[in-house]
Amino acid sequence: MIKVGIVGGTGYTGVELLRLLAAHPGVELTAITSRKEDGLPVADMFPSLRGRVDLAFSAPDKADLTQCDVVFFATPHGVAMAQAPALLAAGVKVIDLAADFRLKDRAAFEKWYKIEHTAADLIEEAVYGLPELNREDIKGARLIANPGCYPTTMQLGFVPLLKAGMIDAGSLIADAKSGVSGAGRKAEIGTLFSEASDNFKAYGVAGHRHTPETSAQLQRFTEQKVGLIFTPHLVPMIRGMHATLYARLTKEVTDEQLQALFEETYKDSPFVDVMPFGSHPETRSTRGSNMLRLALHRPDGGNTVVILVVQDNLVKGASGQAVQCMNLMFGLEETTGLQQIALLP
Amino acid sequence: MIKVGIVGGTGYTGVELLRLLAAHPGVELTAITSRKEDGLPVADMFPSLRGRVDLAFSAPDKADLTQCDVVFFATPHGVAMAQAPALLAAGVKVIDLAADFRLKDRAAFEKWYKIEHTAADLIEEAVYGLPELNREDIKGARLIANPGCYPTTMQLGFVPLLKAGMIDAGSLIADAKSGVSGAGRKAEIGTLFSEASDNFKAYGVAGHRHTPETSAQLQRFTEQKVGLIFTPHLVPMIRGMHATLYARLTKEVTDEQLQALFEETYKDSPFVDVMPFGSHPETRSTRGSNMLRLALHRPDGGNTVVILVVQDNLVKGASGQAVQCMNLMFGLEETTGLQQIALLP
Amino acid sequence: MIKVGIVGGTGYTGVELLRLLAAHPGVELTAITSRKEDGLPVADMFPSLRGRVDLAFSAPDKADLTQCDVVFFATPHGVAMAQAPALLAAGVKVIDLAADFRLKDRAAFEKWYKIEHTAADLIEEAVYGLPELNREDIKGARLIANPGCYPTTMQLGFVPLLKAGMIDAGSLIADAKSGVSGAGRKAEIGTLFSEASDNFKAYGVAGHRHTPETSAQLQRFTEQKVGLIFTPHLVPMIRGMHATLYARLTKEVTDEQLQALFEETYKDSPFVDVMPFGSHPETRSTRGSNMLRLALHRPDGGNTVVILVVQDNLVKGASGQAVQCMNLMFGLEETTGLQQIALLP
Amino acid sequence: MIKVGIVGGTGYTGVELLRLLAAHPGVELTAITSRKEDGLPVADMFPSLRGRVDLAFSAPDKADLTQCDVVFFATPHGVAMAQAPALLAAGVKVIDLAADFRLKDRAAFEKWYKIEHTAADLIEEAVYGLPELNREDIKGARLIANPGCYPTTMQLGFVPLLKAGMIDAGSLIADAKSGVSGAGRKAEIGTLFSEASDNFKAYGVAGHRHTPETSAQLQRFTEQKVGLIFTPHLVPMIRGMHATLYARLTKEVTDEQLQALFEETYKDSPFVDVMPFGSHPETRSTRGSNMLRLALHRPDGGNTVVILVVQDNLVKGASGQAVQCMNLMFGLEETTGLQQIALLP
Repeated sequence: MIKVGIVGGTGYTGVELLRLLAAHPGVELTAITSRKEDGLPVADMFPSLRGRVDLAFSAPDKADLTQCDVVFFATPHGVAMAQAPALLAAGVKVIDLAADFRLKDRAAFEKWYKIEHTAADLIEEAVYGLPELNREDIKGARLIANPGCYPTTMQLGFVPLLKAGMIDAGSLIADAKSGVSGAGRKAEIGTLFSEASDNFKAYGVAGHRHTPETSAQLQRFTEQKVGLIFTPHLVPMIRGMHATLYARLTKEVTDEQLQALFEETYKDSPFVDVMPFGSHPETRSTRGSNMLRLALHRPDGGNTVVILVVQDNLVKGASGQAVQCMNLMFGLEETTGLQQIALLP
Repeated sequence: MIKVGIVGGTGYTGVELLRLLAAHPGVELTAITSRKEDGLPVADMFPSLRGRVDLAFSAPDKADLTQCDVVFFATPHGVAMAQAPALLAAGVKVIDLAADFRLKDRAAFEKWYKIEHTAADLIEEAVYGLPELNREDIKGARLIANPGCYPTTMQLGFVPLLKAGMIDAGSLIADAKSGVSGAGRKAEIGTLFSEASDNFKAYGVAGHRHTPETSAQLQRFTEQKVGLIFTPHLVPMIRGMHATLYARLTKEVTDEQLQALFEETYKDSPFVDVMPFGSHPETRSTRGSNMLRLALHRPDGGNTVVILVVQDNLVKGASGQAVQCMNLMFGLEETTGLQQIALLP
Repeated sequence: MIKVGIVGGTGYTGVELLRLLAAHPGVELTAITSRKEDGLPVADMFPSLRGRVDLAFSAPDKADLTQCDVVFFATPHGVAMAQAPALLAAGVKVIDLAADFRLKDRAAFEKWYKIEHTAADLIEEAVYGLPELNREDIKGARLIANPGCYPTTMQLGFVPLLKAGMIDAGSLIADAKSGVSGAGRKAEIGTLFSEASDNFKAYGVAGHRHTPETSAQLQRFTEQKVGLIFTPHLVPMIRGMHATLYARLTKEVTDEQLQALFEETYKDSPFVDVMPFGSHPETRSTRGSNMLRLALHRPDGGNTVVILVVQDNLVKGASGQAVQCMNLMFGLEETTGLQQIALLP
Repeated sequence: MIKVGIVGGTGYTGVELLRLLAAHPGVELTAITSRKEDGLPVADMFPSLRGRVDLAFSAPDKADLTQCDVVFFATPHGVAMAQAPALLAAGVKVIDLAADFRLKDRAAFEKWYKIEHTAADLIEEAVYGLPELNREDIKGARLIANPGCYPTTMQLGFVPLLKAGMIDAGSLIADAKSGVSGAGRKAEIGTLFSEASDNFKAYGVAGHRHTPETSAQLQRFTEQKVGLIFTPHLVPMIRGMHATLYARLTKEVTDEQLQALFEETYKDSPFVDVMPFGSHPETRSTRGSNMLRLALHRPDGGNTVVILVVQDNLVKGASGQAVQCMNLMFGLEETTGLQQIALLP
């Protein structure tokens, strides 16, 4: 059994990790830390876990995380970089669900996250935890930078076309929509029920941290300079993410060729479902599951291709993807413990 | 024109007062205070008011509220009692949307609200602002204690039967359900979208501040000792309140007599709609309006009468009722500025 | 492997059966029928099942259900009674999620469901499928009448008190609230998003089919004549049911004794979670899981006991309970395939 | 008083017309027709209108609509074209909220709506009822084709830039999101609460009827061939529409110049609110009101301009706009009866 520790289990990615790991057949939950909730049984905070998780939160200094085989950081940015060096030195693998190791460009990190990077020597080693694009590297990694939820949808949608050199990398548009849980479990007025429900809005249009992360990753697959307009929106639903991606085709290509390209790209990826050409994937078809579904469109048969991508932002967009990485790192079947069928309705 | 001041306009009852008063033909909005938002145009916080409210928030010490004819307190408990004495002395009328003057029993107030009452001499003078039961007193009042949202539904449902001596006052049950806006515009985890949506729960079952307020008011209408079980619940909707009231009939009475009793009681109350016997009022039929609708049921023709009551908790349950009181206090038609039709769908 | 057939898989209880059974380790999905959707792959209607359920719907006359070990009826009332006799004769067990065999009183059935009962000789044999109260009978049953969602919450809340003779059976009140999926997957105006969302209402107050079912079952546990007022309401959420139960205590009893009574009653029931006295269970703590959670309250220490009960109406209130019965009927562990942790948030 | 008739008042645009017209000071509601609901009081179907609308539905053959000054068609496509000729001949003005007269190209109409146009001679006369672009024509019109909800947002967002020749008309992208009420009050599975809530999806990506309507209108303002990709999405909210518009700048222009262009364009349009550059308008800021709000963005200062546009799809996107046209046609102040402040929260 893999001994697992979680740092910062009081947020949504934390409780989602607990839901997945408590039912994972190869895992033993060993420790979960929270500075504020020391001593509180996890199931008192999240009654959905009553009878399934016996652990109590423990203060960071009391929990001996070095006895774990792997530690997940479900924390705000900045925590993993402080603790990862010691854990790695003790032979513990680290999966960071925050942004600390997502950007290879340290200066870009410090600009967008407005904190100094204190473990810069680990940035290069960290593997970007998107299994569909980096599966082999993840298998051998000690330190995983788990992708953000938006970047996952954008990359899995754009990359096949970029790699195939079929689109203009300089004029990508990603109009993306996220459920409110993406904002985390923080007491803030903007995400109150009475503010966010029965409402729709864009946010961060002038610049969002996920743009540099995504652009840098996309750049790996093309020699053309990537130009990406990313517009995030807030949807009055708890879970779910929908990206509507627009790209300009630069080659003559048939609908069938486009479809075949995606099916071929993801034929060995159990968590990417390429739906029939012209489908309209719904976020709820992934609710609570680790599946990402996508479908291709070509309005009026013109030279714009539209890729519709959906996932559950807390699963494939966060905690499920982290468990998927863990499976690969420890030689388990990629799908172990991640076979939950989406909850519909 | 009535010069109106608002203390504490950054919450939901505050913005609702602004919505109603900005369109009220007999009112001039004169000042609105907020300690934190001094100088901020109201419409910057609430874009729904752009072009309709030009006022900016001003710090309490800068706003000269004594130039107003009436001041509304849309504040947490404790603020009105501190400022009301000076305003009243200056000839300004006061309408408190909080609880400071709702309980005639000072000890009960201090027990339930856990603050000392610093204007105890005004408690007796304060008029409980439920126009359907206290219309004449309100007309002559200087100081109004605007009822809570739950107590309004409970009183307007139970009082006709209590006054008629038809029910057992000792075994009243009120199972009530409120939209989330009732919890106010405060940054709290429990009312986040991701916590409160797609969910339903009871709260405060062991004891809620609205129980003593309601019991004391109901007691005015019966000599029997009132016994009230009140169970509030949180509904995943923004606005709306539904009370399901249960009472035991102690007299032989027909359905027609019950219906006639309610129709007669409210025949001169423009904001109480007695629906046909056996109807199922919906909260949305009152959304954004000052109407309260109710309907009577008698399951299996037995001796339990069920009264279903709906209202918009922010209008008839708070700000609309406060404006209704203001209209009466200043000799205006009771319905002035309160004729909005509910938004359906 | 148990060969399973499903009649009527296009509704919500049908797709929920599919979600549970597709992941059940002891089951082989063999046939699913639909008159209208003959030939359509199930996963085309419910994309959440893509890659997990390969079956297509088949017309009732084409599907040979007699090859199954058990057939679930996720149909409107009246279908199971028509097909059950032949299936039982062929040695197939039957679990009916509709009402055909819930009422032992044939006349009551025909009055409330307004159809003639065509398999009246099976009514007596049918076992009411509430494992917590009828576990042994279910183990030996050929024909299960799976309880309605409301009756499950009401019985599991009231029965311990009734059996203990602690409450007045003649004045029970059940104020219950259901998510909209309880109304089924039928094209109707009343359950459109634009009608049911941001709204709350009672319905069927004058009389609901679940009242006679519940009363008859409760009557088994007391000699006093049961009197039950049941008021259902519609909550703007997809899944979830909350019952607020009121009963009058007729004996001197402490809170601790009440709590102990419930804990003792359900100590061997893996799907009933008796929460600490005074808790407020949330429906979302059961979302997608087969758990039912309840908690006791005693407002002001008086003689009214309030029992709060929550469950997922599609799981413990329907399809999960049916699978739980199947497990018992086939000698499997009661929890097999039903260990999903609730989806929170 | 203007005598008003409504044909087809049982849908959402119908009840919204009733809400607005019942409170309109210059209007007398004279007749409302419904084939199916003959004799039913309107307020029985829509309790929000109890006490405010006394009219009953009448069958089309019983209602003498020729006595009206103006008749609104809140009907499916095809009804207005059948009845408009006789009404116009009788001197009655007609405002059609459906598509019958929106497309000047009869062949395009018949292709997209799949019905023959039976009043083709009126197509040319019909005035497209978008006051901000056609105010003078509307004043003199007998027959108004009220724009669709999506086209309103797209036109008011793109037209200032097109007219100024600042953008590439051939590569416009409109990623639009609508509340569910846009689908109408029809019993359909896809818009049930349990299907549409907690979910997000695109629809009609391959081709939507609003594309040719919008393209044709936009073409009036540019000599370049308009190329428009329009992607509609369904948002789990009742009312509200958000369009995220992308256009490529073809001229050197500063942010200030862009902002000034929009402010100048709409300075005499009381229902278009140009928010400060970089704002994120929320749909709820227009809920129940006739305001449309928009804001400009320019990500990374590049050559893509993003225009965010919000409105209430049932008001400015349908019934409010129709009343706005009526006001202009009858010489009333444009804002008469349309001064409702948005309901927030």
